[in-house]
Amino acid sequence: MIGGKQKPETPRRPELTLDDYYEGILARDMAVLPRALTMIESNKASHQLAAERLLTRLLPHTGKAIRVGITGAPGAGKSTFIESVGVYLAGTGRRVAVLAVDPSSSISGGSILGDKTRMARLSAEPNAFIRPSPSAGTLGGVARKTRESMLVCEAAGYDVVLIETVGVGQSETVVAEMSDLFVLLIAPAGGDELQGVKRGIMEIADLILVNKADGDLKAAATRTAADYTQALRLLRRRPQDPEGFPKAMLVSALSETGLTEAWAEMQALADWRRKEGHWSSRRAAQARHWFEEEVRQGLLARLTQDADIRARMQALGTSVAEGTQSPTAAASEILAAISGSASSG
Amino acid sequence: MIGGKQKPETPRRPELTLDDYYEGILARDMAVLPRALTMIESNKASHQLAAERLLTRLLPHTGKAIRVGITGAPGAGKSTFIESVGVYLAGTGRRVAVLAVDPSSSISGGSILGDKTRMARLSAEPNAFIRPSPSAGTLGGVARKTRESMLVCEAAGYDVVLIETVGVGQSETVVAEMSDLFVLLIAPAGGDELQGVKRGIMEIADLILVNKADGDLKAAATRTAADYTQALRLLRRRPQDPEGFPKAMLVSALSETGLTEAWAEMQALADWRRKEGHWSSRRAAQARHWFEEEVRQGLLARLTQDADIRARMQALGTSVAEGTQSPTAAASEILAAISGSASSG
Repeated sequence: MIGGKQKPETPRRPELTLDDYYEGILARDMAVLPRALTMIESNKASHQLAAERLLTRLLPHTGKAIRVGITGAPGAGKSTFIESVGVYLAGTGRRVAVLAVDPSSSISGGSILGDKTRMARLSAEPNAFIRPSPSAGTLGGVARKTRESMLVCEAAGYDVVLIETVGVGQSETVVAEMSDLFVLLIAPAGGDELQGVKRGIMEIADLILVNKADGDLKAAATRTAADYTQALRLLRRRPQDPEGFPKAMLVSALSETGLTEAWAEMQALADWRRKEGHWSSRRAAQARHWFEEEVRQGLLARLTQDADIRARMQALGTSVAEGTQSPTAAASEILAAISGSASSG
Repeated sequence: MIGGKQKPETPRRPELTLDDYYEGILARDMAVLPRALTMIESNKASHQLAAERLLTRLLPHTGKAIRVGITGAPGAGKSTFIESVGVYLAGTGRRVAVLAVDPSSSISGGSILGDKTRMARLSAEPNAFIRPSPSAGTLGGVARKTRESMLVCEAAGYDVVLIETVGVGQSETVVAEMSDLFVLLIAPAGGDELQGVKRGIMEIADLILVNKADGDLKAAATRTAADYTQALRLLRRRPQDPEGFPKAMLVSALSETGLTEAWAEMQALADWRRKEGHWSSRRAAQARHWFEEEVRQGLLARLTQDADIRARMQALGTSVAEGTQSPTAAASEILAAISGSASSG
């Protein structure tokens, strides 16, 4: 084959063995890392099994990064912010991986971080690695793939993992459950009309960054940050927070101001949590949570895998909603049916 | 037996048939209602089956009450508030049932609403019926019993059902899922130091009532209400809310001021939601949710019912938390074990 003419469209890549993946990742081989993530993202049973084996081997080499979840409504400037923070961190010598959880990407067709030109400067950084959101399946499935990708990135020596989410449905909660720190990015509100924040988000944010604190918007950003500072004081202090956290701050991703300060706060919070033991206990609790969650999801998937069970759930749900059957009686019927199908199957 | 001497300790009550229960409840027979609720609360399989049958028959007679969930931290004055509102409503000719969801009652031994002397005035009202929280089992189990008791109370002609919760764990969410309206009662905060509100509660409250707006605390209560009004404006408006809701208001359960106004707001919100179709769609969604939730809980109970599965979950969870096994690999192991035990059992 050497020297022979080949069709250029489909260059065949040799299959990698488990050892090739394992050693390539630890050696930070940038030809291997994306292929390992593609395997993790695959829904093929053989790939999933291989990914499970690879992760088990890599596990002792994971866990050293700071994991930062980042959310914000469209228009808050997430891409610009992530790019600016990423370039800043890479400039300090840190290796930065950017991942995403976007459960809507399979529906909308466009995935966040999918367009690398969005982060052209960061893409060009040798210390940075950007990976779009896995695009298939349920939120739980997308989250699991991102979480496993994060572990592979850690094994490949990344010091900071930034995990972006669009905030659809429960995606923030899911990203918070795989992050050490969680950042909410918001745009300044205009005048009296304060910006609506998705309910529940305030309870998981460690840092609220009011972006676009530059030019004409600076005054509005300052007012917005003051409003959030006051709103945060209404919330009960969490055990994992030192005095003064969660905190609202001003940044400008565009003019790159406040980024050093924001990172310093994240670092200070990380240091405090490490010192107080919250860091490792949170990591352990998260790992246990992922395990239990996967067991639960796997069990509940039995409600939808079987077409007959699915149809009965639907019909009984309608009777219950219409008030012609009690929820308890309908549930007994389904549970008996699942036992039946499980023992006969 | 008539006229004969008997031991007075254990007066035997005749067993009631399903027809006795059904007719007694519809006839508002106060000797039958509490016995029906006792049957619902029982964990005996024969009682549960009988309760399921009774509920199925009563179902067409349920749904006419306004269901109001009420939460608040200890010290907010929940008992006094519920008593005052109850007495007020009974005075307008409405029949009022007071129920509770307190998942901690089986641990603490003391159940909310357990001590009827706490609500002596309301207990004396012929139009009022007070039932303590079911005391056994998980939050899901306690909630199901309360929900079913609520349906029985509706069949017995109660116009308003007040459901109290202590706010332990997820109990507020669970009570919100069985309520048409959800009220958060809080005490005034002193000076600058604002009262911490459990995170997440603001997203389910329809009305925040700052209690104790009387005497020395009136000024503090006014400030607290203004703070909450401002905090509520930060939250995105929900489709089921008319302009101005959720709302923060002042009440004094002690001096019985603001109660008429608070009830008028609840009534106005109820009327608007009925007119806009949110009322019936929420009820239908709640019923479907209860059904699906019971199916899910029933399925997940298989993780804890079997001692062997329970022990393996525990051991694998520890390995995962310690980082010696990946969550996905550990979950695969358990799911295979559950299939095995289901098909062999």
